[in-house]
Formats: sequence, structure tokens, C-alpha cells
Amino acid sequence: MNTKRAAAYKSPSAGDYLIASKSCELMNLQYFLQMGKLVQCISNLVHALQCERGASNVFLGSSGEKFAQERKHLVATSDRLRSEFEQALAEIHQELTAHPVSSRLLNQLASALHGLEGLPELRRCVVARKVTAASATEDYSTLIHNLIAVVFEAADTAVDPTIAGLLVAMVHLMNGKEFCGQERAVGSAGFSSGRFDRALSERMAHLIEAQERCFEVFNSFADEGSLDLWEKLRENPRESEIEKLRQRGTAIGRYKDLDPALADEWFRLMSERMDELKKIEDSVEGCFHARCTERFADARNSLAHQETLITSLDAQEPASQPMLVLCDSGNEQQAGESWASDGIGQQFGRSIFDLVQEQTRRLQQMTDELQSAREALEDRKTQEKAVLLLMEHRRISNDEAHRVLRKLAMDQGRKLPEVARALVSMADVLK
Amino acid sequence: MNTKRAAAYKSPSAGDYLIASKSCELMNLQYFLQMGKLVQCISNLVHALQCERGASNVFLGSSGEKFAQERKHLVATSDRLRSEFEQALAEIHQELTAHPVSSRLLNQLASALHGLEGLPELRRCVVARKVTAASATEDYSTLIHNLIAVVFEAADTAVDPTIAGLLVAMVHLMNGKEFCGQERAVGSAGFSSGRFDRALSERMAHLIEAQERCFEVFNSFADEGSLDLWEKLRENPRESEIEKLRQRGTAIGRYKDLDPALADEWFRLMSERMDELKKIEDSVEGCFHARCTERFADARNSLAHQETLITSLDAQEPASQPMLVLCDSGNEQQAGESWASDGIGQQFGRSIFDLVQEQTRRLQQMTDELQSAREALEDRKTQEKAVLLLMEHRRISNDEAHRVLRKLAMDQGRKLPEVARALVSMADVLK
Repeated sequence: MNTKRAAAYKSPSAGDYLIASKSCELMNLQYFLQMGKLVQCISNLVHALQCERGASNVFLGSSGEKFAQERKHLVATSDRLRSEFEQALAEIHQELTAHPVSSRLLNQLASALHGLEGLPELRRCVVARKVTAASATEDYSTLIHNLIAVVFEAADTAVDPTIAGLLVAMVHLMNGKEFCGQERAVGSAGFSSGRFDRALSERMAHLIEAQERCFEVFNSFADEGSLDLWEKLRENPRESEIEKLRQRGTAIGRYKDLDPALADEWFRLMSERMDELKKIEDSVEGCFHARCTERFADARNSLAHQETLITSLDAQEPASQPMLVLCDSGNEQQAGESWASDGIGQQFGRSIFDLVQEQTRRLQQMTDELQSAREALEDRKTQEKAVLLLMEHRRISNDEAHRVLRKLAMDQGRKLPEVARALVSMADVLK
Repeated sequence: MNTKRAAAYKSPSAGDYLIASKSCELMNLQYFLQMGKLVQCISNLVHALQCERGASNVFLGSSGEKFAQERKHLVATSDRLRSEFEQALAEIHQELTAHPVSSRLLNQLASALHGLEGLPELRRCVVARKVTAASATEDYSTLIHNLIAVVFEAADTAVDPTIAGLLVAMVHLMNGKEFCGQERAVGSAGFSSGRFDRALSERMAHLIEAQERCFEVFNSFADEGSLDLWEKLRENPRESEIEKLRQRGTAIGRYKDLDPALADEWFRLMSERMDELKKIEDSVEGCFHARCTERFADARNSLAHQETLITSLDAQEPASQPMLVLCDSGNEQQAGESWASDGIGQQFGRSIFDLVQEQTRRLQQMTDELQSAREALEDRKTQEKAVLLLMEHRRISNDEAHRVLRKLAMDQGRKLPEVARALVSMADVLK
């Protein structure tokens, strides 16, 4: 330590910190390479839990007659994927806890893990049929929500715009798929009971809208390959069949009895849809991994390149360069320009100053490009805050709160995030 | 490593990550305790360089007759404070480079250090009178700007709202003081030459406005003690004397000759003012240190407290708690509520879930409180971007660009940051 300090104290040179700045980027990319694995595992585990939730619902809905076997298999799969998730977590554990990534991310992991710790008990309750389908769905959904929120927090810590963008696409795709899963549950309840009451069909309408909004954001951040898969999904005839069933379920005159046989049809179609959505998640993840690897290789090369450059420059600096620099700097603004004057350029190629300036420009550009991704996450946070606010203030359900928000936006002809921001900014007044 | 992984893999429990989230906060606070030292050193060094710049101006302006001795002493002081700064940097070097704090901060340190490396050469040019006063001022100002920008980047990485707020106050106070120093230089040039031409008095007007804007932000983030000092500075009769000289310098009929004796008077008054501003910086720094220490102690205690709580809880979880939890959860929204149901509360005090929830609330609140500080920094960045944009687009000077921006704001009756944002958002159209 002391020697290190002494050494560092000898000369904390500009070159040292330029290199430190570059290696800092490199460490971040390496970290996100591993984070990508974790995200993949979460995506897999969430999918398995959605299947398990679906089967448990049918199982409970049919008083334990249907899906007893399927459920067992799905539980086994979830357990396998859970341990894969925990393995990936163990592998990134050092990076996660060694340096302050984000207290929020770590705390969200605590929530997710706590949920998983409760899973065996939830299953016991399902098998013993000590819970209603609604209550089991609720608990599975909370667990799934906490897993997806980990990806959200990871996206929130990304500094590379490409990486942040893909994580934003990923988290919105996962959220959309989860709403799709909840719609499957609501639809199953409705069709199997032969009718959709007002609450049920309103909830369904809400879940459909929520899905669409997530997929919109996904669309503006996803890579081309994944967008192609998305288009294919949309064009698939299954979509129109689902549309028909949605309408039959929620159409006016919804109180007429429906053929309970539709329940199986609905469940099959929605399950297929979710499997397709999962494939798109895999494609996003694949692209994410490719980009990270690529960016990491670039960063490592540029770092190596700079290190050689800097050692060669350090020899000449500051003895010769500032001489040229300071004495010819005269014009009022843009001292910088003259510092990087061609005089130096001609003599020893690029100066440390050029390299620092270039890094400054690069980092600034990255920050600018990062903004849209950050905003997408910010919008999501704000909307959730606005919904909670309405729930508390008006004592209404989550669905109703979403409806109120949407209505506000429609009536005022403003975008939803806008209205949400306005509402949150008035929080103190409302209270 | 492998053993570590195995160990970690055994049980990445919710408790582990809750503790990791807490220690992550702790590491951050520790880091900012050291960062505070660095900021203090920067504040000292900047003050010394401002004095050196002032003396060098008078020296160059008087063709080497005035301030030759004073300058020598001031140079010695700057050198002493520079090595103190480098010492502090060496002490935080590990933390700065071991984990990815911020590539931007590290790169800004590279800029600052590069500037310092050019200092000896700048001084040689001054002594040899191979530079004009304007050019020397320019180079000193660039160096000072790069040092202050380090504090800006440090503020940008703060996650604790109290800490971020004080750093925002600090960086704006430092910027205001620097504009004050530049005003001193401009005024000296005007008074010693006996007249202010249009450019000179416009530049002075710009520097006065820029100062005021910085001090406004300082006022909204500083601690009470520092604000008291600020009030005292404002009430000091010196302020009105400065005001009189400002008016004599820049008043209409500015082309009439002024008594060159005013130059010394002006220099003295402005130097006193800057010394007072430096005392306020010290007060902010003192408060910053106190808050960090306080927050650090709190965080360490709460961490210790939680660790004991969690170990006692881990024994019971998940065996008993989810039993109570999952089977009594039924209502549609707010699964969370039921998870933290009193059943558990009564039985073993607080559950891990309660602790995680509490941490979530705390972190959310911190993020919310952080926003105003972030916005203040964002506004500053945006204004700088807008100014650069105007300079490039219209080929005008920094001052003119600021004027255009202010005029826009006045004409549209909007706040400056608002106009700057609008302008930046139209960047592509403008190009």
C-alpha cells in the first residue's frame, strides 16, 4: 500500500488517468458480459415460472384434476433453471459485491432471492390446494416481477448506450411477455368459468394495453434480428385467433355463457405466443452478448494502443510540448485548440492532449446517446410512481389507477409519461 | 476463486444481498470521504492559481515592473498546493482506479493533470514575457476550468442526495469565484489602460451575469453555515464599492478616460472578495466532511444492526415465514403487504422481507431527493452544450453565445436551462 502510494505519488500523470479512464470502461464491459449471462438465466427462469404458474392455475381451477403431472414436470424445470440462475449469480458475485455497482441492483436481487426462498412453500400450498388460483397467481407474479426488476436495475447501471439500449429492449420485452402471461391466466379464469364479469374483462383490457406499451418500447430499442422475429410473430395467424377469443371474451354482451372448451384453446394459443416471445428474448440476449464481446475487444485494443502511444509521449511531455503550446496560444476562446496545435502534431504525432480530448468527446457522445435509454427507464419508473400515487390517494386498484392515467392522457391529448410526470410532480399537493 | 464460487453458490441468500446493498452504500460514503479531501485540495490549488494568474497579469501588464516579487511567492504557494493535491490524489488512487467510479471523472483528472504539467512552461513564458496578459490569462483559466471540472464530475457520481447537493453547491461556488477572478482580470485590463472598449465591457457584463447565476445555484444547495457567510459577504461595504467601479468601467460614455489609479483599487477589492469566497468554499467543504462522517457512521451502524438481525432471521427463513406468508395472501394487488403480514411480525420481530422493503423505500427516497442535484448539473451541461452549438453554428465567441442564449430566454420569458434544452434538442436541425 505505502509503496503503491509512494509510486502513485511520484507522478499521477495525465497518461495514467487517461489509461485509468479507458480501463474503467473495459471493466464495465467485462462486468456486463457476465451480467448478460445472469439476464439470460433470469429470462429462462421467468419463462419456467410462467409455465408453472399457468399449470398451477389450471390445476387449482380444476380442483386438482387437470395438469397434475404436467405441473410436476414444470416444477422440476423451474428448479433446474433456478439453480442455473443461482450458479450465474455466484459467478458474478465477486464483481457484484467487490465494487459499488448499485445498491438498488443488489437490493433488488435480495427481493428476488427472498421470493425464490418462498417458492417451495408456495408449491406446498398449491399441491395441498390451500390457496385460491388468484392468490397463487398473485404470489407467482410478485416473484416474477422481482426477477424482471433485477434486469431493470441492471439496465439502469449501464453506461454504454448500445448495451443500455438492448437491456431496455430486453426488460420491456420481458414485461410485455409477463403481462401476456397474466392475460393468459385472466382469460383462462374467464373461459373456464364460461363468463367474464366486468372486473375480469376490464383487467384483460388493461393487460392488453400494458403489453402493447411494453412492446412499443421494445421496438424502439431492439436489434434488427429480434425485430424480424417480432414481425414474424405479429404476422402469425395465431395472433388473429387470439384476437377473436379476446373479443368473444370481452365483447359487449359478455355475460352470455361461453363454451368452457374455449379455455383449453385459449391456454394453448397464449402459451404458444409466450414461447415465441421467449425466442425473441433469446435473440435479444444473443445480440447483447455479441455487442458486449465486440465492444470489449475494441476497448481492449484501443487501451493497448493508447498505452504504447502514451509511454512514447510521456518521454517528450511536458518538456517540449507545452513550449509549443502555451506560447502560441493567443485567441480568446478555445485555448484547447491551440494546445493541440499542429506544431506538436507534426513533431511527435498526437499529443496526450489530443488523446484526452478524443476520450472526452467519446464519453460525451456516449452520454448523449445514453439519454434515450435512460429516459425510457425513467418514464417507466415515473408511471409506476404515478400509479402507486393514485392507488393510495383514491384507494383504487392498480388496474383502475392505470385506467385513470390513460384517460387523463387521452383527455389532455398528451403522452402517458408526460401525464405521469405531471401527476408525480403534484404528489405533495395531492397528499 | 473456485472455493469462493462454491461458497457463494451454496446459498446466494436474500440476506447476503441485502447486506451487500448496505455495504455498497458504505463503500460509496467512504469513497466520498476521501473525495472530500481531494475537493478541498482542488479548491486550495485553484485559489492559489487564481492569485498567480492575477499577479502574472499585473506583471505582464506593467512590462515586468509590478508584482515581480509577489508573483514569485505566489508561484511557490501554488507549487506547494499542487503537491498537496497530487498527494491527495495518490491517496485516493486505489479507490479511483480499482473499481469503475466513472470514466468521465478519470478522464477529467487526466485533463487537469495535463494542464498542471504545462504550468512550468507557462511560467517560463510569463517571466520571459513571451506571452500577452490575455494569452496567459487564457491558459491559466483553461487549467483552472479543468480542475473545477473534476469536482463537477465527482458531484455527478454521488448517489447520496446530501453529498451530491453539497458538491453541487461547491462546484457552483467555485465556478462563480472563477468568473469573479476573470472579471478581476478584465477590469484590471480596462482600468490600467484607462478605458473599456465595447468588447471589454461586454465581457465584464457577461462575467457578472455568469457569476450571479452560479451563486443562485450555490444558494439553493449550500448548508446554513455557508449561507450565513454568503450573506455577510453580500452585506460587506466592499460589494457596493465594487458595484461603483463596475458602473464607472462599463457605464455609457465608457470611452472617457479613467484614472489608471483605479486599477489598483479594483484589483485589491476583487482580490479581497475572492478571499472571502474562498472562506465560504472552506465552510462548504467542512460541512461536506461532517455530513460524510455522520452518514458513514449511521450506515455502518445500520449495517452492523442488520447483520445481527439477518443472522437471527436466516435461521427461521424460509421454513416458517413463507408458510404464514403465502397461504394468507389473497387480495388482488399489494401482494407485498401480505408478505410482510403481522403474523410474522408478532412471531420473530421483523422479517427479511421487511428489511428489504425498508431498504427499497430508502433507496427510492434517496433517488428522488437526488433528482434536484442531478438536474442542476444537467442544466449546466446543457447550457454549455447550447453555447458550444451557437459558437460553432454562428461562428461567434463564447460571450456572444451566452448573450444570445440569455436574450432568447428573456424574449421568450422562459428559464435559461429551458431555452438551452430546446436549442440542444434542435441541434441536428441547426447543423
